[in-house]
Amino acid sequence: MAASASSLLAAPASSSCGAISPQLPRGAPAAASVASPSRHSCYLLRASPSRRHRSRFVANAAPTMQPPAESRVSTVVDVDLGDRSYPIYIGAGLLDEPDLLQRQHVHGKRVLVVTNTTVAPLYLDKVTWALTHNNLNVSVESVILPDGEKYKNMDTLMKVFDKAVESRFDRRCTFVALGGGVIGDMCGFAAAAFLRGVNFIQIPTTLMAQVDSSVGGKTGINHPLGKNLIGAFYQPQCVLIDTNTLNTLPDRELASGIAEVVKYGLIRDAPFFEWQEKNMPKLLAREPNALAYAIKRSCENKAEVVAQDEKESGLRATLNLGHTFGHAIETGTGYGAWLHGEAVAAGTVMATDMSHRLGWIDDSIRKRVVDILKQAKLPIAPPETMTVEKFKNIMASCKPKGRGRRN
Amino acid sequence: MAASASSLLAAPASSSCGAISPQLPRGAPAAASVASPSRHSCYLLRASPSRRHRSRFVANAAPTMQPPAESRVSTVVDVDLGDRSYPIYIGAGLLDEPDLLQRQHVHGKRVLVVTNTTVAPLYLDKVTWALTHNNLNVSVESVILPDGEKYKNMDTLMKVFDKAVESRFDRRCTFVALGGGVIGDMCGFAAAAFLRGVNFIQIPTTLMAQVDSSVGGKTGINHPLGKNLIGAFYQPQCVLIDTNTLNTLPDRELASGIAEVVKYGLIRDAPFFEWQEKNMPKLLAREPNALAYAIKRSCENKAEVVAQDEKESGLRATLNLGHTFGHAIETGTGYGAWLHGEAVAAGTVMATDMSHRLGWIDDSIRKRVVDILKQAKLPIAPPETMTVEKFKNIMASCKPKGRGRRN
Repeated sequence: MAASASSLLAAPASSSCGAISPQLPRGAPAAASVASPSRHSCYLLRASPSRRHRSRFVANAAPTMQPPAESRVSTVVDVDLGDRSYPIYIGAGLLDEPDLLQRQHVHGKRVLVVTNTTVAPLYLDKVTWALTHNNLNVSVESVILPDGEKYKNMDTLMKVFDKAVESRFDRRCTFVALGGGVIGDMCGFAAAAFLRGVNFIQIPTTLMAQVDSSVGGKTGINHPLGKNLIGAFYQPQCVLIDTNTLNTLPDRELASGIAEVVKYGLIRDAPFFEWQEKNMPKLLAREPNALAYAIKRSCENKAEVVAQDEKESGLRATLNLGHTFGHAIETGTGYGAWLHGEAVAAGTVMATDMSHRLGWIDDSIRKRVVDILKQAKLPIAPPETMTVEKFKNIMASCKPKGRGRRN
Repeated sequence: MAASASSLLAAPASSSCGAISPQLPRGAPAAASVASPSRHSCYLLRASPSRRHRSRFVANAAPTMQPPAESRVSTVVDVDLGDRSYPIYIGAGLLDEPDLLQRQHVHGKRVLVVTNTTVAPLYLDKVTWALTHNNLNVSVESVILPDGEKYKNMDTLMKVFDKAVESRFDRRCTFVALGGGVIGDMCGFAAAAFLRGVNFIQIPTTLMAQVDSSVGGKTGINHPLGKNLIGAFYQPQCVLIDTNTLNTLPDRELASGIAEVVKYGLIRDAPFFEWQEKNMPKLLAREPNALAYAIKRSCENKAEVVAQDEKESGLRATLNLGHTFGHAIETGTGYGAWLHGEAVAAGTVMATDMSHRLGWIDDSIRKRVVDILKQAKLPIAPPETMTVEKFKNIMASCKPKGRGRRN
């Protein structure tokens, strides 16, 4: 179960533009480097022939609790954050195991499941069963929000508070996020702010949420002028990834999640990137073992980064490759028109292209990035409506400079 | 500068109702005790003849920075919270000392002052001057909110986010709360949530905010069904109390603040309570030395409690004496009809009366509580519209049980 991610990150350099370089296994020029992103949040690819520093972070993937012998938990990735550490359980059919949630992670007797109109008909009953089976002590309420990024705002968030207040929840309750990244971000922020902080659990049901947004404690909502401008760093009690939930995910949503999987390979895990180049057809065909491996490796990579830089004062910003352009696309086209991963894919190509034009990376890297995203059927260019002027305006207005955070 | 507060708090007892008892200097029956508030948030007075445990907490009142020789800073109370520690500066004319804020506490080049329509005409120019005098690096924006508890809601909070986003603030900015408790709570929560957390400074201009709400990091807004149900624990960079700002405070607001001053004497500082009994006329006449002393002792008491229990898992709940009934009065009469301290005063009398009826305290204590609140011209009974039924309904619906927090 030990993680096998090879970190490709070098010590911060003094470039004025944060630069990220994959040491691609073949055809890549020399070793990789990452310049400090603390001054700018423009994340580009850069290969520096003069740097061969190579750090290795071994993922802490030891189980934090011993699953029962018959458990379907195939992997437990531990996010190491001191007294805010938590496990990520990954496996097929985990929602059929009531013990997993009940035993350690539900606080108090009352649970509020936050989900949306798409996911509720599919999994709300199952999750309610998992929380209450053979457990008369727990009662479950739910709030079903409209589905989509365009609803990730203060009005929708208030519906969660309204439900919790009207149901007379107290501080010993647990909020459960059941859905994709939007639900996870909103439920997490609601849990952070309700009575100044209650317990919460993530049950991500999209690949995007499973490999990225449910891990690391970034929560929040959008402002009409920019994504995720209002929120909190707030860690869950655990993340439970039942890979069976991907069986009901639309193809477009699956591809969106793959954009973030590709990102981990690019920024810090060359063998994983190479594996993706070979196994993309299996991922698109939803081959269970391939999906489980991609999720595990992605979570291990993210857990390593978050453990070192929870609040994004430096290293964590490397997770934002492609997001500077990507967020501008999402804002410029109206939240929800493009899925997050679609915007990130186009943004990654833009960042790669810019790095190439600046002479930082060889054209072969740029080509491999384009090829893998094409394989995943992801967009490799922004929509035509996104003019240079529009990019510049949006990136200037919603760019949270400073400690380098992006999303 | 050493604090002279004598703590009267005893070890938690096993009572089923959190009970707080002042060891009043004369006429009080035996020593004081505080039962654990972790099970209930009903804070009553209790004198337990069987308990004579007496703990003493020495306030950490050492200056954290050396004020200039000519500085008007008369006191610096340090709130000791590890890497979130901060100083409370107390003195007459501190807003005339630009260095105090500029030297250590403003982060970045951009400052957003959050204030209201009452305070802005009085102090906004002065604060802007203090932030920018001889300091071309800093630019100041402001957002002026409507004045009053009834505006402490999500709609008003959004105005702060709107201003910060539209002004393109980044993470290296500083939010300044200039006003009373409502402004401090809203600005603090906005600072906690904007870009997941930016620097902030409290400049309280009411006695209530100076002795209570600006210290300790509780921030938040009200929900229509209960006070402070949405918020964060978020500590400021510093608190700057210019006692001259009390010169413009209406009498009713001054009295409201005194309700919290009385609370510190009752729950943990018998000599301070005795001092108040003798010096109430001076406080009401705004005698500068008396006010400065009352603010200093109140801040020292609060700083000691917060340093030991930042997130209110036990001890901090003792600060809520009278607030269970008080918040119900505020909710039941509509936010803003009664000032917070007025509701707390009536709530304190109710708690005292209940303790007396339960046989926990002698009638002489009850009488002294009523007398001192009468001296301060504060209400000693709830409004007639607050029936028993209404109290019960409100207290059941907005009572955040669990770890005992109240406001």
